[in-house]
Amino acid sequence: MKVLTVELDAHGDMADITDEVRKFVRESGKREGAVLVFAKGSTGAITTIEYEPGLKKDFPRVMDKIAPYNDYYEHHKTWGDDNGSSHVKASIVGPSIVVPFKDGELLLGTWQQIVVINFDTRRRKREVILQIL
Amino acid sequence: MKVLTVELDAHGDMADITDEVRKFVRESGKREGAVLVFAKGSTGAITTIEYEPGLKKDFPRVMDKIAPYNDYYEHHKTWGDDNGSSHVKASIVGPSIVVPFKDGELLLGTWQQIVVINFDTRRRKREVILQIL
Amino acid sequence: MKVLTVELDAHGDMADITDEVRKFVRESGKREGAVLVFAKGSTGAITTIEYEPGLKKDFPRVMDKIAPYNDYYEHHKTWGDDNGSSHVKASIVGPSIVVPFKDGELLLGTWQQIVVINFDTRRRKREVILQIL
Repeated sequence: MKVLTVELDAHGDMADITDEVRKFVRESGKREGAVLVFAKGSTGAITTIEYEPGLKKDFPRVMDKIAPYNDYYEHHKTWGDDNGSSHVKASIVGPSIVVPFKDGELLLGTWQQIVVINFDTRRRKREVILQIL
Repeated sequence: MKVLTVELDAHGDMADITDEVRKFVRESGKREGAVLVFAKGSTGAITTIEYEPGLKKDFPRVMDKIAPYNDYYEHHKTWGDDNGSSHVKASIVGPSIVVPFKDGELLLGTWQQIVVINFDTRRRKREVILQIL
Repeated sequence: MKVLTVELDAHGDMADITDEVRKFVRESGKREGAVLVFAKGSTGAITTIEYEPGLKKDFPRVMDKIAPYNDYYEHHKTWGDDNGSSHVKASIVGPSIVVPFKDGELLLGTWQQIVVINFDTRRRKREVILQIL
């Protein structure tokens, strides 16, 4: 098991962690298996995407159309908070993915990268847990 | 393996099952690993969220904006059913998450709970399968 | 590990791969465990759904309301491409699910099938990786 710490901007900023996952798999010495990638915390999420500057803007834009920052959220009443939209977005995308590997290599598509996303309304250090299954 | 049965109201009602998952992990005697949480049935879903009264309302509201109950669904034509929106919502959120644990403890954020959601249009007993990976 | 190749139409066409997953689990000889189902490539996705003609139309329609094909995407600027919406949809639904089995049988609901979805804007052969965990 390994914990990555990734500092990200607010409102859907994302980081490509494929290389870190790849390295973790290689260092495990396992040839075939699967690796769990899990975002700790309720305003972060994990998915795969083609990591390029365009989609880095498109994805948060669409997520904010689904759950706009400026909407009213009951969550704000509970805590005097402003990140109701962040929670909803993170729960839709989800906290975990599992990626298979063979001969020590991740079985991803060429344009498919593993990303951690920070949906919170402030800059955050996000923890990502990697684990061989 | 363990099967939880959770009775839930319609239209996105959710239950916090973190304690049951935690107990299941402890009883397994395993110190490090991951636990699969899987919703049986096509109108239920699993995710993590900050489980508090506000988000319990916000999340179903946003999901119903995505796939409104009152829209027309081809699904209704197939079965004379009224839960096309339920199916779509459940398929977006997804049926499974995998949560890592270490020293017998789930590696969740402080405000991150595991929930089962019933998107169906009637009260349902939902089955959730827990399994150590 | 096994790789399925499934040819699918564009814009959210889906195929029911439950029988292939079931067969894979039986051939593994394992009685209890879980199977990873992973979509290789950044415009494909895996989920469960009640696989019937109505929802086969409803699901892509709702996904296209979330991320319309005809919207402007920064992604198109990067590559001169037209599939920004495809990437966003695939990243929301996600590339992986994990399904438990017992006595060699998948623990799915009666109306819950495993599907691979092609969100790309052209017909594609999608690769799906199956792996016992």
